[in-house]
Amino acid sequence: MVLRCIKCGKEYSENEVRYTCNCGGLLEVKLDIERIKNEIDISQYKKHPPTVWKYSQFLPVKRRVSLQEGGTPLYFTDNLAKYIGLKNLFIKHEGMNPTGSFKDRGMTVGVSKAIELGINKVACASTGNTSASMAAYAAKAQLDAFVIIPSGKIALGKLAQAIIYGAKVIPIKGNFDQSLELVSELCKRKEIYLLNSVNPFRLEGQKTIAFEIWDQLGDVPDQVILPVGNAGNISAIWKGFKEFYDAGIIDKLPKMIGVQALGANPIVRYFKSKEINFEPVEKPETSATAIRIGNPVNWPKAVRAIKESSGTIIDVTDNEIRDAQTLIANKEGIFVEPASAAPIAGLIKLINDDFIKYDETIVAIATGHGLKDPNFVLDSISVPKAVPPNINELLKTIGL
Amino acid sequence: MVLRCIKCGKEYSENEVRYTCNCGGLLEVKLDIERIKNEIDISQYKKHPPTVWKYSQFLPVKRRVSLQEGGTPLYFTDNLAKYIGLKNLFIKHEGMNPTGSFKDRGMTVGVSKAIELGINKVACASTGNTSASMAAYAAKAQLDAFVIIPSGKIALGKLAQAIIYGAKVIPIKGNFDQSLELVSELCKRKEIYLLNSVNPFRLEGQKTIAFEIWDQLGDVPDQVILPVGNAGNISAIWKGFKEFYDAGIIDKLPKMIGVQALGANPIVRYFKSKEINFEPVEKPETSATAIRIGNPVNWPKAVRAIKESSGTIIDVTDNEIRDAQTLIANKEGIFVEPASAAPIAGLIKLINDDFIKYDETIVAIATGHGLKDPNFVLDSISVPKAVPPNINELLKTIGL
Repeated sequence: MVLRCIKCGKEYSENEVRYTCNCGGLLEVKLDIERIKNEIDISQYKKHPPTVWKYSQFLPVKRRVSLQEGGTPLYFTDNLAKYIGLKNLFIKHEGMNPTGSFKDRGMTVGVSKAIELGINKVACASTGNTSASMAAYAAKAQLDAFVIIPSGKIALGKLAQAIIYGAKVIPIKGNFDQSLELVSELCKRKEIYLLNSVNPFRLEGQKTIAFEIWDQLGDVPDQVILPVGNAGNISAIWKGFKEFYDAGIIDKLPKMIGVQALGANPIVRYFKSKEINFEPVEKPETSATAIRIGNPVNWPKAVRAIKESSGTIIDVTDNEIRDAQTLIANKEGIFVEPASAAPIAGLIKLINDDFIKYDETIVAIATGHGLKDPNFVLDSISVPKAVPPNINELLKTIGL
Repeated sequence: MVLRCIKCGKEYSENEVRYTCNCGGLLEVKLDIERIKNEIDISQYKKHPPTVWKYSQFLPVKRRVSLQEGGTPLYFTDNLAKYIGLKNLFIKHEGMNPTGSFKDRGMTVGVSKAIELGINKVACASTGNTSASMAAYAAKAQLDAFVIIPSGKIALGKLAQAIIYGAKVIPIKGNFDQSLELVSELCKRKEIYLLNSVNPFRLEGQKTIAFEIWDQLGDVPDQVILPVGNAGNISAIWKGFKEFYDAGIIDKLPKMIGVQALGANPIVRYFKSKEINFEPVEKPETSATAIRIGNPVNWPKAVRAIKESSGTIIDVTDNEIRDAQTLIANKEGIFVEPASAAPIAGLIKLINDDFIKYDETIVAIATGHGLKDPNFVLDSISVPKAVPPNINELLKTIGL
């Protein structure tokens, strides 16, 4: 196992504390897939509890700081499928992880790596989910945790989480992209382990989403669609599918489809500009706070995933996100955070554009639980007026 | 299988829409345990996905409206155990159910029963978790859902859930106990299925917590400790252990320990009064909204569970609850809602009182996720002031 630059190919030891290559390129963990291929016996998978660690042969750490992350439900969403004109639609509900988002899959590996490296301080910048997750795993491992957040731009539930888990939370007057720059500098200057998704070990945990989809579906779907913020997850899931392919476990690959918010869509713009120049969105805006990122650090990995898989990336408006969130809840009893509704909003567009066909098998990734951001729901509705505690008043109000 | 009154023993068909006996007593589902005992092969359990339905032989319905509830983590909380002076402390995190509370276990059975009975409207009164859960399962089954809540006394996340899942939410000017009276009357007058925990089918789902504890621990714990609101869950879990005992799967039983909030402690008072007279608490008060119930409908079942198991019930203050919530999060990275912290607050007292010994195996039930009620956390802390996006300011703030 080594860390390899995806730009220039230079390799580094996995025991070096390093997040990017000297050339500035992103690093990724390069496993010895041939060795894994010879050793693996997938018939043994059934015997293991359904967590991230079921796939430990593909994970680059030996220590385990775990909160039993992973093993999230893959829902066959038949009511929703019928409504939007699909046959086989599944939602992989990553909001069912311990802290309520997919970040837990990455953090269990990232914090375990910090322990292996002998570092007892961790830090991240966050739109909310990353900080909640890092703070929880740091608490379990009893490490010091520092969280830099864009002031006023983080959902209520997520802020409460980081604080109660005991992280030191520092809001800054700036956006997520500035927070990430700052925390990177902080980690460089002090002996603190950076746990944003530029950390390649984080993505190793997240790639288990791909493994689980195959495990639960019994097959590889035609398309996997998910929200894109800092662009780590789409990169991670694609890496997972490719590793299973290289290990001979699967014999086909899905198309990877990203969905960004219209106000924070730098990768969509990059493709529209014929991939000439990647330009960050200076002032990203969307009420789907989890993807309110203008300068996604993993954009080169995401672009690779989309191109290699013959996928695509599109953007949706906040209103489309809101409608999709309500639709998922109403039709399926599944409550997801705003960013996680973006894939369903995107699907509706892609069906209209004929990019997706009726009988394809689609897996949409819901990255976070709706309880992360209750205000997004409550801001747009008025709670009905209280009625006197009287059966006739009640019958009148209900209209039965 | 029949419905049997726990007071007078009268039996009713399980196909009758009925929640209490003509004598006013509570009903419970009486399974044919001898038949189950002859049919069951627990070595087959390993082959089933870890949901409530793994134990379908013990569940009194054939239909399944499911969101993959159950299979929640049983955490070995070693940091916390050490801190409060125990050896083997586990937290069963029911907040990891689909809508974030243990209610989902009951609702999957209750809503399935509604379908079997051919009723397409469901209703409940709720301090929040019940309504969120019922609304979700009603959405999946595409039933009409009516929710009566005490106005202003329900946590933010829970309100958002009931609304977005599509339930008709009616706040009333009154408390939970009044809401329950009203909704019972509503269900009597119209063809609506009542899904509060007076419904014996709800408790059938919840009893699977006992089955899972045994499954995950590989043994029966010495003590099970949990919050008591409407008193359905302590009754249900005790029923589960007893059924496994009667079926010959386990050969011992745990003590059942309930914890109420000091301001909503009618069952504690009942025991203190030497069980002479059960008096509801007229104006229940606690910021742990999930257990803000003065007249728990299942109190006779709860009293039976506590007495039969040689358990106990105690009360804790809101401050003790708050401290326990922070402790669980800080030591273990587990965020639970206020009511769910009550058992840990209670444990600390019981250790001091020598009711619990150092080397006993204790399972504390965390009934709901902390994300249900982020304001409980945010109300008691001040979010730090935002700093300028500058590394020197950041270093100064962090103090490194």
